[in-house]
Amino acid sequence: MTRMLGGQDCLSMESHASSASTPGALPYYVAFSQLLGLTVVATTGAWLGVYRGGIAWESALQFNVHPLCMVIGLVFLQGDALLVYRVFRTEAKRTTKVLHGLLHVFAFIIALVGLVAVFDYHRKKGYADLYSLHSWCGILVFVLFFVQWLVGFSFFLFPGASFSLRSRYRPQHVFFGAAIFLLSVGTALLGLKEALLFELGAKYSAFEPEGVLANVLGLLLAAFGAVVLYILTRADWKRPLQAEEQALSMDFKTLTEGDSPGSQ
Amino acid sequence: MTRMLGGQDCLSMESHASSASTPGALPYYVAFSQLLGLTVVATTGAWLGVYRGGIAWESALQFNVHPLCMVIGLVFLQGDALLVYRVFRTEAKRTTKVLHGLLHVFAFIIALVGLVAVFDYHRKKGYADLYSLHSWCGILVFVLFFVQWLVGFSFFLFPGASFSLRSRYRPQHVFFGAAIFLLSVGTALLGLKEALLFELGAKYSAFEPEGVLANVLGLLLAAFGAVVLYILTRADWKRPLQAEEQALSMDFKTLTEGDSPGSQ
Repeated sequence: MTRMLGGQDCLSMESHASSASTPGALPYYVAFSQLLGLTVVATTGAWLGVYRGGIAWESALQFNVHPLCMVIGLVFLQGDALLVYRVFRTEAKRTTKVLHGLLHVFAFIIALVGLVAVFDYHRKKGYADLYSLHSWCGILVFVLFFVQWLVGFSFFLFPGASFSLRSRYRPQHVFFGAAIFLLSVGTALLGLKEALLFELGAKYSAFEPEGVLANVLGLLLAAFGAVVLYILTRADWKRPLQAEEQALSMDFKTLTEGDSPGSQ
Repeated sequence: MTRMLGGQDCLSMESHASSASTPGALPYYVAFSQLLGLTVVATTGAWLGVYRGGIAWESALQFNVHPLCMVIGLVFLQGDALLVYRVFRTEAKRTTKVLHGLLHVFAFIIALVGLVAVFDYHRKKGYADLYSLHSWCGILVFVLFFVQWLVGFSFFLFPGASFSLRSRYRPQHVFFGAAIFLLSVGTALLGLKEALLFELGAKYSAFEPEGVLANVLGLLLAAFGAVVLYILTRADWKRPLQAEEQALSMDFKTLTEGDSPGSQ
């Protein structure tokens, strides 16, 4: 499909005007992703509310801040930040970039609260830190997320990086963005599993309602990750070039026969 | 980058001849993926051998057949099956397809042994089946894997599906293939976590050597998934069209101005 678009590219410029309209099925997939994402957040809240006593900072309930913040920040908001370029198709590129960057900032702040909550809870309870696979993956997600944001900011928002440098880095940024998001979903699944096994123990195998609800939450998390990934990877759903970017890209292509910015 | 390749497509046919040579960095990435994959299998074996008493069918060790088979079949072999089109770049398309299909058959058979092992072990021990998130994800992987194989076989290997139908289904097949592979890696991580928490319990937080080894195994599994995904998604590493496919694609494009087979 990319190939076809590429082929049309140089046959007729009008094809771009038509590709600027939103693909027919995209809004339904985006709506479905949002429905799934909100269901994930609501189910996490329901699980913590019904089976874990709710949320508070100054008590044993402080732990519950951790899963809720992580699901909102590193799953829902991070997923939505990735979808920004598919949803805002005709807005100025810079506006879309700023929104993409800002959503990541919100995601990071919320996740930071979740991180502080669990370390603070462990400290008060005298529990060991960072021994589990979940915690190792979580720290990895945090470091990668932060580095990716810094590098992305300095290449794409901070003025200075050349057009050629941006074009070269863009595919890497896109890949690592998707990979960090998927690792976040995977880490959430590990954490959910950990919370279930610690609390339920042998009752898990008796199909306790909490276990069933949490399994459903796990499948919903995986489904949200899959739908976001599907929307991101559909070649014909990528954001079309705006008129000014297109002109720039044409000049650049003629000059270098090198990388083009169309492949974001 | 895809856009650029597409653009060159219709400017000069020679560009295809040059793109038929293997990209410089690809062999190193493939070698690294194989090193990681083999390390994952070896580490799984070491974990089961050193800390879980090894492997046997007719004893309590039957459980250990499960993780080993799943890691070999649904992680290592499935990952390699996806890489076939990146590695065999100049062989006949049909040969590569058959290899892709066969590797999936091997992966499925080995995974089936792993599945039988755990159900048989549960039956002998009187344990409940299919209550955990790991088991739900695992069954989902199995069903999706099987359906994907059947549909892929009937579209791409069984003669009958039209060129247009194949071109339309190909991107879906590629997406679901990658998604099922990633879900397999995620399910392996959940299983690993489960095995650790069941066995180690509170000792996990004391940084027992087994826990640390298993955490490292978890990170290796995630890294293998990430490297395979990276190789698959690099647009300029996709398999170039062969001469005969190219001719067919050109005819087809002229006829329909529709989907082209270059986007697999």
